[in-house]
Amino acid sequence: MTEKDIQFMKRAIKLAQEGMNSNAGGPFGAVVVKDGEIIAEGFNRVTSTNDPTAHAEVVAIRRACEKLGTFQLDDCIVYTSCEPCPMCLGAIYWARPKAVFYACDKVDAAKIDFDDQFIYEELDKKMGERTIKFTQILQKDAQVVFNEWDSKVNKTEY
Amino acid sequence: MTEKDIQFMKRAIKLAQEGMNSNAGGPFGAVVVKDGEIIAEGFNRVTSTNDPTAHAEVVAIRRACEKLGTFQLDDCIVYTSCEPCPMCLGAIYWARPKAVFYACDKVDAAKIDFDDQFIYEELDKKMGERTIKFTQILQKDAQVVFNEWDSKVNKTEY
Repeated sequence: MTEKDIQFMKRAIKLAQEGMNSNAGGPFGAVVVKDGEIIAEGFNRVTSTNDPTAHAEVVAIRRACEKLGTFQLDDCIVYTSCEPCPMCLGAIYWARPKAVFYACDKVDAAKIDFDDQFIYEELDKKMGERTIKFTQILQKDAQVVFNEWDSKVNKTEY
Repeated sequence: MTEKDIQFMKRAIKLAQEGMNSNAGGPFGAVVVKDGEIIAEGFNRVTSTNDPTAHAEVVAIRRACEKLGTFQLDDCIVYTSCEPCPMCLGAIYWARPKAVFYACDKVDAAKIDFDDQFIYEELDKKMGERTIKFTQILQKDAQVVFNEWDSKVNKTEY
């Protein structure tokens, strides 16, 4: 942990505070850093923008990608005031930064009634045992499109 | 599986095809249904909009919430042409629809080189064993904000 790491995490925590105080959403903030500089910031905006995906990390990642003009966060570091929920962890893996620093963890989040831990548990369950019912239909129809993708020539992979 | 379910899934698969053909992104489509009607549609737009979070389900969920003016998809059903990746699964749990139908699964996705299966495996690993390094710092500083949230009076929970 360097002085810079502390500085960037303090900024993420400050954003969590700002978002909470302005009633933007829950108490979560995040920044994306590249080459030692913050290139994007975000705090949770779920309830104020009616967007359940507007978690701090997702907001910061989307802004960072927009700024960089790419869908990949090569050589970037994400600092988030709380351990990413499964959605944000997925977003991080798709964006592929080189590292993540977090402050509070999912146990802390559960204590203030956020569902992170519950969702992690649901992910480990078989489809039929989940709280939200998942049903597979028309697999063969959809596989046709996947096969077309597989043989498509002019495609951008990610 | 009803006739309606088939109809909605066929629409999701059609969207996957359209998104792929127009080079919006990967071959994935989704619709959100409420009271027997499609209220929002989406296809993957990752590469065309430089947004790693713009998976079909996330796009459709965000649009559905915007249309309904809420951050919760009460009584809604999500139809997606492929089993949701961890990010989309997380988004679904936060949006809380009542059910999900999917067509292709994560094995099909892995066959055409999408990372879903890899990310599911990463989620099950301990922090220190993950491909992307996760480090916890300044937990106590961030807990201060969580405690303020806990005692905050005028807050919208989600």
